[in-house]
Amino acid sequence: MSTDHAYQRLQYLLLQELDQQRWKPGQRLPSIRQLCQQHGLSKATVLHALQRLEASGRIEARSRSGYFVRQNTPAELTPLPLRQAQPPTPAPVNVSELLADIMQRGAAFDLLPRELQQQQSIPGIQILNRSIGRALRQQQGVTHLHYDEPAGYWPLRQQLALRYQNDGCALTAEDLCITSGCQHALFLALKACCNKGDLVAVESPGFYGVLQLLEQLELRVLEIPASPVTGMDLEWLEKAARQWPIRACVVTPAFATPTGSLMPVEQQKKLLQLAEQMDFTLIEDDIYRELGFYSRPSPLKALDQQGRVILCGSFSKTLSRDLRLGWIHAGRWQSQVVRLKLVTQLASSRFVQQGLAAYLEDGHYDRHLRQRCITLQQQSEQLMQELETLWPQGLHFSRPQGGLCLWAEWQQPLDSLQLYHQALQASLVITPGPLFSASGQFGQALRLSFTQPCTGKRYQALQDLRKLINELSGTPASGRFASTTTARQSVRGFCEGSAERRLSGGAGSSHPTAPQD
Amino acid sequence: MSTDHAYQRLQYLLLQELDQQRWKPGQRLPSIRQLCQQHGLSKATVLHALQRLEASGRIEARSRSGYFVRQNTPAELTPLPLRQAQPPTPAPVNVSELLADIMQRGAAFDLLPRELQQQQSIPGIQILNRSIGRALRQQQGVTHLHYDEPAGYWPLRQQLALRYQNDGCALTAEDLCITSGCQHALFLALKACCNKGDLVAVESPGFYGVLQLLEQLELRVLEIPASPVTGMDLEWLEKAARQWPIRACVVTPAFATPTGSLMPVEQQKKLLQLAEQMDFTLIEDDIYRELGFYSRPSPLKALDQQGRVILCGSFSKTLSRDLRLGWIHAGRWQSQVVRLKLVTQLASSRFVQQGLAAYLEDGHYDRHLRQRCITLQQQSEQLMQELETLWPQGLHFSRPQGGLCLWAEWQQPLDSLQLYHQALQASLVITPGPLFSASGQFGQALRLSFTQPCTGKRYQALQDLRKLINELSGTPASGRFASTTTARQSVRGFCEGSAERRLSGGAGSSHPTAPQD
Repeated sequence: MSTDHAYQRLQYLLLQELDQQRWKPGQRLPSIRQLCQQHGLSKATVLHALQRLEASGRIEARSRSGYFVRQNTPAELTPLPLRQAQPPTPAPVNVSELLADIMQRGAAFDLLPRELQQQQSIPGIQILNRSIGRALRQQQGVTHLHYDEPAGYWPLRQQLALRYQNDGCALTAEDLCITSGCQHALFLALKACCNKGDLVAVESPGFYGVLQLLEQLELRVLEIPASPVTGMDLEWLEKAARQWPIRACVVTPAFATPTGSLMPVEQQKKLLQLAEQMDFTLIEDDIYRELGFYSRPSPLKALDQQGRVILCGSFSKTLSRDLRLGWIHAGRWQSQVVRLKLVTQLASSRFVQQGLAAYLEDGHYDRHLRQRCITLQQQSEQLMQELETLWPQGLHFSRPQGGLCLWAEWQQPLDSLQLYHQALQASLVITPGPLFSASGQFGQALRLSFTQPCTGKRYQALQDLRKLINELSGTPASGRFASTTTARQSVRGFCEGSAERRLSGGAGSSHPTAPQD
Repeated sequence: MSTDHAYQRLQYLLLQELDQQRWKPGQRLPSIRQLCQQHGLSKATVLHALQRLEASGRIEARSRSGYFVRQNTPAELTPLPLRQAQPPTPAPVNVSELLADIMQRGAAFDLLPRELQQQQSIPGIQILNRSIGRALRQQQGVTHLHYDEPAGYWPLRQQLALRYQNDGCALTAEDLCITSGCQHALFLALKACCNKGDLVAVESPGFYGVLQLLEQLELRVLEIPASPVTGMDLEWLEKAARQWPIRACVVTPAFATPTGSLMPVEQQKKLLQLAEQMDFTLIEDDIYRELGFYSRPSPLKALDQQGRVILCGSFSKTLSRDLRLGWIHAGRWQSQVVRLKLVTQLASSRFVQQGLAAYLEDGHYDRHLRQRCITLQQQSEQLMQELETLWPQGLHFSRPQGGLCLWAEWQQPLDSLQLYHQALQASLVITPGPLFSASGQFGQALRLSFTQPCTGKRYQALQDLRKLINELSGTPASGRFASTTTARQSVRGFCEGSAERRLSGGAGSSHPTAPQD
């Protein structure tokens, strides 16, 4: 690599000092001002060097405090009690046309998708687009006559591998294959490790895209209850695995849609043990992990000693859905997966990958992520405050520590599918609970997203939604269905470290019951 | 549409005159100079208007002659005798890892793929890249948070529909779904109309990508002999269809890889009748049709009255492989196809589609195509001359009227798979005959591409290839295997309209024999 530029010289100088442990993990680096003075450089040059070091995972920026040497131990969370749902039984998957329609409209994660075009562009995305534009302009000779290599552009895979290494996951660029987004990665994963009719365990509520894939691939689904706080219930999963031959289990350990749950590390270890013991494959949906408000958890894959976990991810939630770029690390199935990608679509666009790789290497992605996590955290607070004001009683909702959405369950009888159609007439797009279950559960629930600020028209949209909900259930504006839950059952009082983070699914027991056997 | 610009005003003026039949089909329009004088406009403005009219299919440019009112009747060709091959029998598909390797390297259609980066960029591609760059810069607000609609960007589909309409095919934007290239379209087509174990008829020799798809989808293949001149042999196909239950037939009517064959319209009609009679689906691979040297044939789909044809195409061969943009028109299977695309990869990149749609609408694509067809025609002549010089005897090759490649069969015993490995050591990448057959036929044949001029290093590469072939078959530089074929059997004397266009597969009879029954 050339060291012609001042920022590069500073980057390597700092890297040397880090290698020599001039500063300990967690310790603060000299401030930008100090570095400018010491090295006689401009602020922009110093910042560029620091951002590149951050992108390489050696240091991390903390809001308004400066840059710190990165700690490599992931934050662990206390295991938490779980939420109850219907006992699981295997079933073929039949996601109706209606749900396909909802999915198309709702995939934008916004009550008012039409409003999005009016907004200002995000600086991080403008920089990304310039980077891709540059890659296009620099396309040499007749390289447009070449297909990209089937596993994807090598420097992009290197950047991705570096990020995973920094998050405690020992994988290399060789292990990764670029895909057309995470859904494509999940498709390749399921196609590689399952055969028609096989049984696949999923979170319930869980990602509708997986249900649709299972339907297309003619796989059978086993819905495992998942806590809105800690994710998939392992007691249920274990009992189910003893009763039925589970081939694979799709799981989103970090900030799962629709609840925003985060599976504690101890629980992740148990999940791996169970997969090993009962001999099934784990497919990790890693699309939200980098959107942690307070810390970035390690992937489940980092704990995987046996090569049981297929890792699937994408830039669609962190950066742009329009890139259509994701990745897969399928371990023992990797050559099969690359082959299947090659055969079904030959390659990915190289210029998009080139622009993205440069964007990552220059540290822009980390800067964008940092800003995005702060924004999402603020918007989630805002949304939760509005929900508390609008429904002082009768509504339980999760309080995610990352991701894009929370899960809200009304205590009054609510048909959220009916609400979907009513809302559509008022130009509101909601994502009703049954979308997240193959068996149509969660009729009283909605996924609510905080990707946009809950102000102005969106604040009004929430008011309109309350009106619609009340009309549907024949309730006056202030809840007739006064909550029958105690403070202990509410997730509203939920705060980090609390043992009381629990969302009641109804009148049920506090402990899950066994699947019928 | 706004008519503020001078080129738009002229475009609509000319359009009115065309509608009033001021000029008849085939008649020449006033010259650019005349139009400049008549309307007091600059040459650039007049050209822009003419190119947009050309893009809309109303007029066509002829090299060094000006613009002409388009004839809508496709040029018909006389049916020609067919080439003999092995009698077909159904078989599972097993494309070896070696062939997958060859495919990856050979997909570049060049003997010396490493040389490509040294070359000058093509102006048409620079314009395309600027158009995509513009679409990226114009991305409004937070539209990057939206997925594109599953069937693809509407204005691009409109442009595609317009092109097909101009080629005599009554389809609309509604009918089309954007895919990640033609291979992806073929995947969606086969997945929609076939079930595991179904029998699919293909051309032999034919496109290896289809063979790999059949293998992945666990379909069985029936190889139907194809003429290097007129494509799939319908007598064979009919006999095979009477013996076995064919579910689908994949066919490339225009300029098929590897031979460059063009199926005459009468034969296309018969193919449709046969599909109707024997109740199978036709999957048309339409990726090369716009690369006709002398005229652009209509697609098979244009003749389809019964909705039997699934149409698959892409910009990979005409424009850029790095776009990863193709399309499918699947008729009665369309909603199923769009659903499968949605479920397996959600969407395509909208900004790439936006840039491409603008490029098409502005007439740049037609201008690029015109230049490319002239270049390809010249390069094909050049290659054929070199082949005649290098192998004055003992080599038969096809003389395509479009596409990217020709088919060369040596009369001496040649193991082209072995040649592949020998050539690779000399940094030459060849595409050996057996790659184009599920049963490993055509060991004495190669596909040779004329995507690059046969000069300098590539001329040397051909010389090296001759040396390797002679070494492999232990022949001195001037052929020991003097041709045993008569002038009648040679395709070298082949010219348009000749009844002698025939490539002999060996000592065989002049007429195909029936499959064993």
